[in-house]
Amino acid sequence: MQAEILIIGSELLTPGREDTNSIYLIEQLTSMGIPVAFRTTVGDERGRIAETVQQALARADLVIVSGGLGPTSDDVTREGVADAMGLELVLDETILDGIRRRFARRGLEMPQVNQRQALVHRSAKVLPNPAGTAPGLWIRTSTSASGRCRSPKDLILLPGPPRELVSVFETHVLSQLVDRGRGTVYRTKQLFVAGLPESSVEQKIAGIYREYRNPRTTLLASAGQVEIRLVAHGSSKLDADGATEKLAARLREILGDHIFSESGEDLEQVLGQMLRRSSRTIAIAESCTGGLISHRLTEVPGSSAYFERGFVTYSNRSKVELLGVPEVLFHQYGAVSEQVARAMAKGARQRAGTDLGLAVTGIAGPDGGSDDKPVGLVYIALSDNEGDRVKRFHLPGSRTEMKRWTSQLALNLVRLRLLESQGS
Amino acid sequence: MQAEILIIGSELLTPGREDTNSIYLIEQLTSMGIPVAFRTTVGDERGRIAETVQQALARADLVIVSGGLGPTSDDVTREGVADAMGLELVLDETILDGIRRRFARRGLEMPQVNQRQALVHRSAKVLPNPAGTAPGLWIRTSTSASGRCRSPKDLILLPGPPRELVSVFETHVLSQLVDRGRGTVYRTKQLFVAGLPESSVEQKIAGIYREYRNPRTTLLASAGQVEIRLVAHGSSKLDADGATEKLAARLREILGDHIFSESGEDLEQVLGQMLRRSSRTIAIAESCTGGLISHRLTEVPGSSAYFERGFVTYSNRSKVELLGVPEVLFHQYGAVSEQVARAMAKGARQRAGTDLGLAVTGIAGPDGGSDDKPVGLVYIALSDNEGDRVKRFHLPGSRTEMKRWTSQLALNLVRLRLLESQGS
Repeated sequence: MQAEILIIGSELLTPGREDTNSIYLIEQLTSMGIPVAFRTTVGDERGRIAETVQQALARADLVIVSGGLGPTSDDVTREGVADAMGLELVLDETILDGIRRRFARRGLEMPQVNQRQALVHRSAKVLPNPAGTAPGLWIRTSTSASGRCRSPKDLILLPGPPRELVSVFETHVLSQLVDRGRGTVYRTKQLFVAGLPESSVEQKIAGIYREYRNPRTTLLASAGQVEIRLVAHGSSKLDADGATEKLAARLREILGDHIFSESGEDLEQVLGQMLRRSSRTIAIAESCTGGLISHRLTEVPGSSAYFERGFVTYSNRSKVELLGVPEVLFHQYGAVSEQVARAMAKGARQRAGTDLGLAVTGIAGPDGGSDDKPVGLVYIALSDNEGDRVKRFHLPGSRTEMKRWTSQLALNLVRLRLLESQGS
Repeated sequence: MQAEILIIGSELLTPGREDTNSIYLIEQLTSMGIPVAFRTTVGDERGRIAETVQQALARADLVIVSGGLGPTSDDVTREGVADAMGLELVLDETILDGIRRRFARRGLEMPQVNQRQALVHRSAKVLPNPAGTAPGLWIRTSTSASGRCRSPKDLILLPGPPRELVSVFETHVLSQLVDRGRGTVYRTKQLFVAGLPESSVEQKIAGIYREYRNPRTTLLASAGQVEIRLVAHGSSKLDADGATEKLAARLREILGDHIFSESGEDLEQVLGQMLRRSSRTIAIAESCTGGLISHRLTEVPGSSAYFERGFVTYSNRSKVELLGVPEVLFHQYGAVSEQVARAMAKGARQRAGTDLGLAVTGIAGPDGGSDDKPVGLVYIALSDNEGDRVKRFHLPGSRTEMKRWTSQLALNLVRLRLLESQGS
């Protein structure tokens, strides 16, 4: 069984629009063992849609079409498919009722144009849309008007808005296809690494992952994080997962605690679990990151259990007033210094009455740097009841990247500290 | 003139790989007035590539093919194109020399496999690759083996690695195509709206923008922001921009100050400029947003001129200690209340000694809601020397969306306040 994806929409052939539907569909299909042989994007033109549908049906067993099911006259996917397959369009009263009720629930009358969304191909199975007005349609056919299709084929029409496409696919399509995949199954595994630059990760593991054609390994670096992505194929999920696990085990041996997540969790989620399990609380004092570390920690539901407060001490005065940083340190060492970072972390911990105090101070740029203290210089300090530690970094990148990178290094410093105390 | 884009690469039909080349090519071509009619992704299979190239040449005047020009046996784009067009492949000694020298510069001998990259179609123009080993190829033809092409056609082969594709395109292709675009030029304009839900924006402007087929208008809503995207076409940039401006002027009349940006600037950038121009300073007190508002404000370079400090007062104790919120308010009204929001904003302003104090308190969820105070309830307060104002909202969505939405409404409240004082 082989699939083809057909994305309909002129806007996807002009700038500024991204096609997330095909990415989603590829993920779904390949994880079920249904390989995707073609992906085509075509504008909202009836003739072209018909031509493309015929070509796709001639090649593939399963054709998934997305988009062009809206109510306006631009939306001609139904008509194009009808032309391609020689099928008549008929009004489905049940769908029409559903659309009318959908509008009524919002206190509106259904606009006349929406009636078109109740047109279905004779013989099509209707796939109700929990998230919108246009239902999906499933047409199973063994011959088409073109006479080019010989074996039974499935053509599935899905609405274009991503939320609706996902909703219809997962409600009506997924379970029907899951037993049909006889081909190669693809499985992805992500290992997230913090505290090592991409070049070091590459140097440490290239010799190993290059031994393997399966899984295929890619390194994706973002500020302060390297994702090692393994995409394996096999005759089954078990088989593909086995191939991944073989390589993953070797990578774990080499990278150890630098790997903070193997199930797609962010550093703030992992750290949140660790803080919760160890019943520790934390306060954050941020200068250059401007609130990002607190923001990330509080993205995690339930973070109020361990996150007590954050100080965004952007001015020197606020560092003195809120954290008790001695003013003399600014004159002697400057606001971006090991000494100030240390005082901030300690002040945060003591003032908030938490187990841990984490502080960052740095020069985010683009201005404010000097030869002595260049843009990208940052100090990260962590204070707890056993003492404190300060790390100095010089980070590349834009202001946004520098902030992100710093937040990542800071959260990772806390993670490593908690791992130590677990070990001891 | 009409173009088609053909992306070759089996990895692009498996999970985890994104096709940035077609996004780049669509931007480039449509901005030159060359419309793109199809985009197809096909795996590295010679027969399929040949078939797809023939179909593309039958439809389009210009076919741009990317990928599959590497040195390994997987890379069969050259062969597929040769089959499709009935052209012989010959070894180009100049290219071979270039590849050999490229390796020599790195102290390496050219691997035998790379010799394939010096194969070119008879009659093809070679497009040297400044960034890699595989050159681009430009084939101009008026007939093909299939006999289906009648008018002269251009087929351009570009290397798949994005950096190399861009490099070859901009060095050798751009200047050759720029005069060929006789077709439509596309131009995009974005109007950013805050403080109105998508449905209200739609209701206010649908009647107007629907009058226009050109520009085409799309509304894209994200938490607390609606982007009105106008994509206009015309015979020239000037022409397309004129079409945009005509509609934009009418939208401005209706939406007024709800439009905060017309040049892609974020709300924090716009607000930063306003604070700077009016020489006002601000302090932020955040509960449910957990530092996000401070983070956003400090994303803007130079924000230290107006952002004095932020308080991430997640616990009640921190609201009392850092902002002087009277403890009785928690008992009387609860932490998520108009009274607490007001006291937070006033406390932030007074303690920080700033002109403005902005505060938010709410229930980000997913837990912690009640019938009385459901998840999504938020109070936003702004305090200045003329008094204070508090707004209440009930926001939908996930924890992350709720935080984002709240930050947007809060920043917009400050913007509207500054607009008022400008006007007075």
